Amino acid sequence: NDNFGDPQLGKIKAPSCIFCHGVDGTASNPTYPHIKGQNAQYLFQSMKDYQDGKRKGPLAQMMKAQLSRLSDQDLRDISAYFSSQN
Amino acid sequence: NDNFGDPQLGKIKAPSCIFCHGVDGTASNPTYPHIKGQNAQYLFQSMKDYQDGKRKGPLAQMMKAQLSRLSDQDLRDISAYFSSQN
Repeated sequence: NDNFGDPQLGKIKAPSCIFCHGVDGTASNPTYPHIKGQNAQYLFQSMKDYQDGKRKGPLAQMMKAQLSRLSDQDLRDISAYFSSQN
Repeated sequence: NDNFGDPQLGKIKAPSCIFCHGVDGTASNPTYPHIKGQNAQYLFQSMKDYQDGKRKGPLAQMMKAQLSRLSDQDLRDISAYFSSQN
Protein backbone atom coordinates (compact mmCIF):
# COMPACT_ATOMS: atom_id res chain seq x y z
CA ASN A 1 0.00 0.00 0.00
CA ASP A 2 2.88 2.38 -0.77
CA ASN A 3 5.81 2.78 -3.15
CA PHE A 4 8.28 1.24 -0.74
CA GLY A 5 9.35 -1.70 -2.92
CA ASP A 6 8.24 -3.82 -5.86
CA PRO A 7 5.49 -6.22 -4.78
CA GLN A 8 5.85 -8.41 -7.86
CA LEU A 9 9.56 -8.92 -7.22
CA GLY A 10 8.73 -9.38 -3.56
CA LYS A 11 6.46 -12.30 -4.27
CA ILE A 12 9.30 -14.03 -6.15
CA LYS A 13 11.73 -13.37 -3.31
CA ALA A 14 9.40 -14.66 -0.56
CA PRO A 15 9.40 -18.46 -0.93
CA SER A 16 10.64 -19.09 2.60
CA CYS A 17 8.16 -16.61 4.13
CA ILE A 18 5.03 -18.31 2.85
CA PHE A 19 5.74 -21.59 4.63
CA CYS A 20 4.70 -19.99 7.94
CA HIS A 21 3.04 -16.69 6.93
CA GLY A 22 0.98 -18.04 4.00
CA VAL A 23 1.00 -17.14 0.31
CA ASP A 24 -1.12 -14.07 0.98
CA GLY A 25 0.30 -13.36 4.45
CA THR A 26 -2.33 -15.23 6.44
CA ALA A 27 -0.52 -17.35 9.01
CA SER A 28 -1.90 -20.85 9.54
CA ASN A 29 -0.40 -21.22 13.03
CA PRO A 30 -1.96 -18.90 15.65
CA THR A 31 1.39 -18.26 17.28
CA TYR A 32 2.68 -16.67 14.04
CA PRO A 33 1.63 -13.23 12.83
CA HIS A 34 -0.54 -12.48 9.87
CA ILE A 35 1.41 -10.06 7.68
CA LYS A 36 -1.06 -9.37 4.85
CA GLY A 37 -1.93 -5.71 4.62
CA GLN A 38 0.64 -4.84 7.28
CA ASN A 39 2.43 -1.51 6.91
CA ALA A 40 5.42 -2.06 4.59
CA GLN A 41 7.74 0.16 6.59
CA TYR A 42 6.93 -1.81 9.74
CA LEU A 43 7.56 -5.14 8.00
CA PHE A 44 10.89 -3.85 6.69
CA GLN A 45 12.03 -2.60 10.10
CA SER A 46 10.96 -5.84 11.79
CA MET A 47 13.06 -7.86 9.35
CA LYS A 48 16.02 -5.51 9.85
CA ASP A 49 15.64 -5.99 13.61
CA TYR A 50 15.76 -9.77 13.16
CA GLN A 51 18.84 -9.46 10.93
CA ASP A 52 20.53 -7.17 13.44
CA GLY A 53 19.78 -9.43 16.42
CA LYS A 54 17.45 -6.91 18.06
CA ARG A 55 14.82 -9.60 18.61
CA LYS A 56 15.73 -12.48 20.88
CA GLY A 57 14.50 -16.04 21.35
CA PRO A 58 14.21 -19.26 19.32
CA LEU A 59 11.79 -17.89 16.72
CA ALA A 60 13.85 -14.71 16.37
CA GLN A 61 16.92 -16.88 15.73
CA MET A 62 14.98 -18.77 13.07
CA MET A 63 13.88 -15.52 11.45
CA LYS A 64 17.45 -14.20 11.51
CA ALA A 65 18.67 -17.32 9.73
CA GLN A 66 15.88 -17.16 7.14
CA LEU A 67 16.66 -13.51 6.40
CA SER A 68 20.46 -13.77 6.44
CA ARG A 69 20.96 -13.70 2.65
CA LEU A 70 18.42 -10.98 1.83
CA SER A 71 19.49 -7.41 0.94
CA ASP A 72 17.68 -4.28 2.05
CA GLN A 73 16.09 -4.06 -1.40
CA ASP A 74 14.93 -7.67 -1.11
CA LEU A 75 13.34 -6.82 2.24
CA ARG A 76 11.64 -3.74 0.75
CA ASP A 77 10.22 -5.79 -2.10
CA ILE A 78 9.00 -8.55 0.23
CA SER A 79 7.47 -5.91 2.52
CA ALA A 80 5.67 -4.35 -0.44
CA TYR A 81 4.31 -7.72 -1.53
CA PHE A 82 2.75 -8.71 1.79
CA SER A 83 1.60 -5.16 2.46
CA SER A 84 -0.29 -5.21 -0.85
CA GLN A 85 -2.27 -8.34 0.08
CA ASN A 86 -5.78 -7.93 1.45
CA ASN B 1 -10.84 -14.86 17.18
CA ASP B 2 -10.27 -17.35 20.01
CA ASN B 3 -10.99 -17.83 23.70
CA PHE B 4 -7.64 -16.50 24.79
CA GLY B 5 -8.88 -13.56 26.86
CA ASP B 6 -11.87 -11.27 27.35
CA PRO B 7 -12.09 -8.75 24.50
CA GLN B 8 -14.51 -6.49 26.37
CA LEU B 9 -12.16 -6.22 29.33
CA GLY B 10 -9.30 -5.83 26.88
CA LYS B 11 -10.84 -2.75 25.33
CA ILE B 12 -11.03 -1.13 28.77
CA LYS B 13 -7.42 -2.03 29.52
CA ALA B 14 -6.05 -0.69 26.22
CA PRO B 15 -6.15 3.11 26.52
CA SER B 16 -2.43 3.55 25.94
CA CYS B 17 -2.39 1.16 22.97
CA ILE B 18 -4.88 3.07 20.88
CA PHE B 19 -2.82 6.24 20.77
CA CYS B 20 -0.49 4.58 18.23
CA HIS B 21 -2.35 1.43 17.14
CA GLY B 22 -5.81 2.99 16.77
CA VAL B 23 -9.10 2.23 18.51
CA ASP B 24 -9.69 -0.75 16.21
CA GLY B 25 -6.01 -1.65 15.80
CA THR B 26 -5.39 0.31 12.61
CA ALA B 27 -2.14 2.23 13.05
CA SER B 28 -2.14 5.78 11.71
CA ASN B 29 1.65 5.95 11.37
CA PRO B 30 3.08 3.63 8.68
CA THR B 31 6.06 2.74 10.83
CA TYR B 32 3.76 1.18 13.45
CA PRO B 33 1.99 -2.15 12.98
CA HIS B 34 -1.68 -2.66 12.45
CA ILE B 35 -2.83 -5.12 15.12
CA LYS B 36 -6.51 -5.57 14.27
CA GLY B 37 -7.35 -9.17 13.50
CA GLN B 38 -3.85 -10.26 14.45
CA ASN B 39 -3.52 -13.67 16.09
CA ALA B 40 -4.11 -13.21 19.83
CA GLN B 41 -1.38 -15.64 20.86
CA TYR B 42 1.11 -13.74 18.70
CA LEU B 43 0.07 -10.39 20.20
CA PHE B 44 0.42 -11.82 23.71
CA GLN B 45 3.88 -13.25 23.04
CA SER B 46 5.03 -10.01 21.41
CA MET B 47 4.01 -8.03 24.50
CA LYS B 48 5.73 -10.56 26.76
CA ASP B 49 8.88 -10.19 24.66
CA TYR B 50 8.75 -6.42 25.11
CA GLN B 51 8.23 -6.82 28.86
CA ASP B 52 11.12 -9.28 29.07
CA GLY B 53 13.50 -7.09 27.08
CA LYS B 54 13.70 -9.52 24.16
CA ARG B 55 13.09 -6.71 21.68
CA LYS B 56 15.69 -3.95 21.50
CA GLY B 57 15.71 -0.36 20.33
CA PRO B 58 13.99 2.94 21.14
CA LEU B 59 10.49 1.81 20.20
CA ALA B 60 10.96 -1.45 22.08
CA GLN B 61 11.98 0.55 25.16
CA MET B 62 8.83 2.63 24.78
CA MET B 63 6.71 -0.49 24.48
CA LYS B 64 8.37 -2.03 27.55
CA ALA B 65 7.55 1.07 29.57
CA GLN B 66 3.95 1.16 28.33
CA LEU B 67 3.45 -2.50 29.25
CA SER B 68 5.29 -2.45 32.58
CA ARG B 69 2.19 -2.43 34.81
CA LEU B 70 0.14 -4.97 32.89
CA SER B 71 -0.36 -8.55 34.12
CA ASP B 72 -0.42 -11.62 31.90
CA GLN B 73 -4.20 -11.62 32.15
CA ASP B 74 -4.31 -7.97 31.10
CA LEU B 75 -2.17 -8.85 28.09
CA ARG B 76 -4.45 -11.78 27.19
CA ASP B 77 -7.52 -9.55 27.36
CA ILE B 78 -5.90 -6.81 25.28
CA SER B 79 -4.75 -9.43 22.76
CA ALA B 80 -8.30 -10.78 22.54
CA TYR B 81 -9.69 -7.30 21.98
CA PHE B 82 -7.47 -6.34 19.06
CA SER B 83 -7.62 -9.84 17.60
CA SER B 84 -11.41 -9.56 17.51
CA GLN B 85 -11.37 -6.35 15.45
CA ASN B 86 -11.84 -6.59 11.69
